[in-house]
Amino acid sequence: MIPLGSTEQHGRHAPLGTDSLLAIALAEDASERTGVLIAPPIWYGWSPHHMVAPGTVSVRPEVLIELLYDAIRSLSRHGFRKFVLINGHRLANLPWIQIASERAQRELKVSIFIFDPLYMSLDLRKKVDFGPFGHGDDMETSHLMHKFPELVRMEEAKDYVPERVVYADPLEPKDTLCYIPSTEERMMEIKESTGDTIIGTPSRSDPDKGKLYHEHLVGRLVELLQSIR
Amino acid sequence: MIPLGSTEQHGRHAPLGTDSLLAIALAEDASERTGVLIAPPIWYGWSPHHMVAPGTVSVRPEVLIELLYDAIRSLSRHGFRKFVLINGHRLANLPWIQIASERAQRELKVSIFIFDPLYMSLDLRKKVDFGPFGHGDDMETSHLMHKFPELVRMEEAKDYVPERVVYADPLEPKDTLCYIPSTEERMMEIKESTGDTIIGTPSRSDPDKGKLYHEHLVGRLVELLQSIR
Amino acid sequence: MIPLGSTEQHGRHAPLGTDSLLAIALAEDASERTGVLIAPPIWYGWSPHHMVAPGTVSVRPEVLIELLYDAIRSLSRHGFRKFVLINGHRLANLPWIQIASERAQRELKVSIFIFDPLYMSLDLRKKVDFGPFGHGDDMETSHLMHKFPELVRMEEAKDYVPERVVYADPLEPKDTLCYIPSTEERMMEIKESTGDTIIGTPSRSDPDKGKLYHEHLVGRLVELLQSIR
Amino acid sequence: MIPLGSTEQHGRHAPLGTDSLLAIALAEDASERTGVLIAPPIWYGWSPHHMVAPGTVSVRPEVLIELLYDAIRSLSRHGFRKFVLINGHRLANLPWIQIASERAQRELKVSIFIFDPLYMSLDLRKKVDFGPFGHGDDMETSHLMHKFPELVRMEEAKDYVPERVVYADPLEPKDTLCYIPSTEERMMEIKESTGDTIIGTPSRSDPDKGKLYHEHLVGRLVELLQSIR
Amino acid sequence: MIPLGSTEQHGRHAPLGTDSLLAIALAEDASERTGVLIAPPIWYGWSPHHMVAPGTVSVRPEVLIELLYDAIRSLSRHGFRKFVLINGHRLANLPWIQIASERAQRELKVSIFIFDPLYMSLDLRKKVDFGPFGHGDDMETSHLMHKFPELVRMEEAKDYVPERVVYADPLEPKDTLCYIPSTEERMMEIKESTGDTIIGTPSRSDPDKGKLYHEHLVGRLVELLQSIR
Amino acid sequence: MIPLGSTEQHGRHAPLGTDSLLAIALAEDASERTGVLIAPPIWYGWSPHHMVAPGTVSVRPEVLIELLYDAIRSLSRHGFRKFVLINGHRLANLPWIQIASERAQRELKVSIFIFDPLYMSLDLRKKVDFGPFGHGDDMETSHLMHKFPELVRMEEAKDYVPERVVYADPLEPKDTLCYIPSTEERMMEIKESTGDTIIGTPSRSDPDKGKLYHEHLVGRLVELLQSIR
Repeated sequence: MIPLGSTEQHGRHAPLGTDSLLAIALAEDASERTGVLIAPPIWYGWSPHHMVAPGTVSVRPEVLIELLYDAIRSLSRHGFRKFVLINGHRLANLPWIQIASERAQRELKVSIFIFDPLYMSLDLRKKVDFGPFGHGDDMETSHLMHKFPELVRMEEAKDYVPERVVYADPLEPKDTLCYIPSTEERMMEIKESTGDTIIGTPSRSDPDKGKLYHEHLVGRLVELLQSIR
Repeated sequence: MIPLGSTEQHGRHAPLGTDSLLAIALAEDASERTGVLIAPPIWYGWSPHHMVAPGTVSVRPEVLIELLYDAIRSLSRHGFRKFVLINGHRLANLPWIQIASERAQRELKVSIFIFDPLYMSLDLRKKVDFGPFGHGDDMETSHLMHKFPELVRMEEAKDYVPERVVYADPLEPKDTLCYIPSTEERMMEIKESTGDTIIGTPSRSDPDKGKLYHEHLVGRLVELLQSIR
Repeated sequence: MIPLGSTEQHGRHAPLGTDSLLAIALAEDASERTGVLIAPPIWYGWSPHHMVAPGTVSVRPEVLIELLYDAIRSLSRHGFRKFVLINGHRLANLPWIQIASERAQRELKVSIFIFDPLYMSLDLRKKVDFGPFGHGDDMETSHLMHKFPELVRMEEAKDYVPERVVYADPLEPKDTLCYIPSTEERMMEIKESTGDTIIGTPSRSDPDKGKLYHEHLVGRLVELLQSIR
Repeated sequence: MIPLGSTEQHGRHAPLGTDSLLAIALAEDASERTGVLIAPPIWYGWSPHHMVAPGTVSVRPEVLIELLYDAIRSLSRHGFRKFVLINGHRLANLPWIQIASERAQRELKVSIFIFDPLYMSLDLRKKVDFGPFGHGDDMETSHLMHKFPELVRMEEAKDYVPERVVYADPLEPKDTLCYIPSTEERMMEIKESTGDTIIGTPSRSDPDKGKLYHEHLVGRLVELLQSIR
Repeated sequence: MIPLGSTEQHGRHAPLGTDSLLAIALAEDASERTGVLIAPPIWYGWSPHHMVAPGTVSVRPEVLIELLYDAIRSLSRHGFRKFVLINGHRLANLPWIQIASERAQRELKVSIFIFDPLYMSLDLRKKVDFGPFGHGDDMETSHLMHKFPELVRMEEAKDYVPERVVYADPLEPKDTLCYIPSTEERMMEIKESTGDTIIGTPSRSDPDKGKLYHEHLVGRLVELLQSIR
Repeated sequence: MIPLGSTEQHGRHAPLGTDSLLAIALAEDASERTGVLIAPPIWYGWSPHHMVAPGTVSVRPEVLIELLYDAIRSLSRHGFRKFVLINGHRLANLPWIQIASERAQRELKVSIFIFDPLYMSLDLRKKVDFGPFGHGDDMETSHLMHKFPELVRMEEAKDYVPERVVYADPLEPKDTLCYIPSTEERMMEIKESTGDTIIGTPSRSDPDKGKLYHEHLVGRLVELLQSIR
């Protein structure tokens, strides 16, 4: 398993390392149950749209493709043949992970699986009442409250739900444009009108929902790891 | 509008240029109704998984990112500020289009919209009885039968539906891994067991369904073009 | 055969796609006589000097080298061993085509032939009375009048012959500097003093000369294709 | 501060993450005394010579240059103007750090300081009796015993001191060739003749020496941080 | 002036540095008459086709483009605005020089002139009886005999004139394919059948013809330098 | 042997080509005693910090890595297996030489030795009274006075010794930060306060010291060449 995250603002209520910390937490708990090894994480991701908020680090996707490819190439030299990439940064990291993964599968004859919490919790979302997904939303925040409660400041959590999400929502299949990371201009508008850079309803976060979410994901991850052994 | 396609085998029953031809057809019909200009198409896409079948051309996504970026950059020099990219190649072209689009939006201060027939026909699929989406499936083939009947040889159409689709199906939201273009090894297995490289049920294709599909998409595209004027 | 063109202003009297359209026309007519296959065209070329006029798209030569290389590499995977590149964009496309071709010949063990209408019509120019070659000149315009008469607006054709051509004229071998695509500053001077961006005497164009030219080129191309079978 | 390390075998007695862990430990202890912020670490470094031993990940230096540059560029966007790079991987990471740092200083107008434990402990080495520096040597191992005792297995520690170090030893200035990361062939010879990939005398490690070393380095780092405020 | 050459076999009778030495000699003699400064030469060029013969160094054209661009960029920083590139390596160096020159003119607002002895001696060749141009031919060899007689071993000179030159001969304008550096396979055939890698008739070389040639070129170069002051 | 230098200001008293000339001189004298061949030099190096003074050419290290790699790759094709790189540009060229050398050793299975006059004269400096090393210092200037006396103008030599050298001095091992090429801002300060860009005491230069230095280095180089035969 290789945890892939980001260093990116997640509103005033959640830490910069949210995406990386949660990916690491999933990998660690699944490792404990299966013994599968974890490679060191990549803490920086592709976050051009979040550069409006202090602390965000955005690395060009072209660079991240090469970085991940070299990590997989090195490990494949030592005999590892199956990799599960745990993506804590959801939609915005996927394009470069897909490109690196395809090259690695083709050139190195390894098998790669991209495990993304958003896409691996669609079943759960039918059962648990999460608000709309976005950024620093109640799904992420609940997850943090369960695993890293000391890093959450709920009193700072601000909700913001845009009138419409312009790109594909995996939960609700309807005609849609495809995702492009937002522009800084658009993020600045949100920041100026809401005082923060959040999309979603973090105020509805709850450590119990976070626990259900985490256990669901770890369960799925363990299933995956066992099935590909 | 910039039509983006691929040059890629689509089974014995459909032409190599399927993805490009259909993207061009959508752009042309929407242009007729709106007067919006169309830039010359990019005929080559990212198709590493289809190299098992003769005629496929696959360009590295790193190259396609730069090519599309330069096209948009040049046109933005002449005053164009809004671009609709018509992607005829569905999931496999999206990662590089997303990366190029983000860079273009950030550096050139243009607005970009990615119009993908798959994601723009989810509403229709609730009403029209299409089989599972895949490659050379009944949705694509019906579309071809409506717009390019002389290029389809239905007598060659072979169906193949894998037991499970391993990656995100936009129609049916359930827990899923994320998409990576398939390996040649996997495609070769399909080819050896089915005699073709099709995923889906092209035998169920029908020009009337194709017409509904085309009209739905052109309608959506026209709506989009009018809304961003 | 792979047609390589450009999307580039050709004066008020000729279409943006002139170079691509004419390369495609040559390939198609030679294909009809020989059965040799044509790959989809590359519509965008290297046109930095024409960015002064609306509609021109210029792709960096570094990108075009990789694009063409990938197209040839893909096709060589399917067994194609001989490629004829039809260059509709004359001098300005040659450097990157040469670099891509050399790499392809060396690494892929294929044979490549660069067929350029300018260099393949030197014999004809001794017999047919064409004016000086340039851009949007009577040779190109006559060719268009023969093959795409509906795309030419002769009433807009403006002549401009600079006092001296500073780079190698293949028709008249004399001491000369080597070609560098012109600067935008230089093109802007032409545009400002002549009202257009033409070099040559398009007013002298004539569909009959265009027919002679086209037939000459198709004949040469057919000869080449037959000789390398 | 940005900690830069490696994921690289350090013999049977020390963890793969040695270089990264020690860089992070220095940064954290200096941060505690000064309040200076720490960016997330880069866990992967340039380790081509250690690919002979399982677990090592080596990223091309060209990629690491871009990664570090993007991290600094992002942070400089938020107003950070002074960066201290803590290099836990000694000589082998320096070339790419130097190249990235120069570019960042020149283009971003930031100030960068490369803090390398090897070069920042030369004064101490005159006072404390460390063996020859190498890889997994008593300096690194003592440091680990002080900060991460649970990760050291002293019973596995094997000594190996080559007859001559062929490249610059900062402690003993004498005529010397310059450093190039060793070849795998050379490392394999060491591995085959000694049963491990260590250079130095880890058997002489001692947590008290490790403590002196750590305190010396943290002291130097705090001095540096205070002097550049 | 920047002399651009190659390090490339020139048959048994002429030195590896032929192209570089002659470019330097032209620059030096023109500098003496005009006072125009000369930048240090680039000794390595693009010579993939000559790798069959010992001593040849071939640098990728992509690298040479960046090298030349950086040299021009640096000098433009110091106020130089006009550059004459003396290309001693004829056709094979032109593509990358053209690409670098265009970029430099566009981005740095400098003026660049490519002075190539082959294209700048077309007038002279009407008057002086040189054999066909090729590689290590009587034009190059005569030039060497005039300027570097100690480096020529005429007793080793072997003639070889291929039945037809397949690419554009600037002296004789007729229908022709465009130049691609030859393949090693083709060069090996020449080497095996003639015992050397020469194209042309070096046996007809003569220091007097070399002197006429050199003086002609220096005269043209001086004219150019004076005209662009 | 491949001489690697720079084209870089060396104060008013020494030539732009100092680093290249001295590297070539060392190679030539060692070649004379051993018969070892010398490849043509690379005259341009990495000199971003010296762009403040007219004449300096700085090439990006990424480009120099590829250039040197291609030179070594070409020569390795002809059977050369051992390379001694003579670096006349000291600290600033080392990072890119190290990166290129490692890649060449790994991919081409050649052996590379980096011979740097600074690191190869540490023994001598204990015996001969040189001032602090820097740029255009008495070591370099004495060397020039011995080998190229006509290029030195001692009456222009200006001394400048900064209070502290902030980076590793190989002669005096003490706690130190690692080297990053200086910024132009810093160099401009030196230039403005001292009227030149020199660091060191060139006024103390002496051709006899230069001779001792040169002979020492040639001796070391000959020893190296003989030991690796």
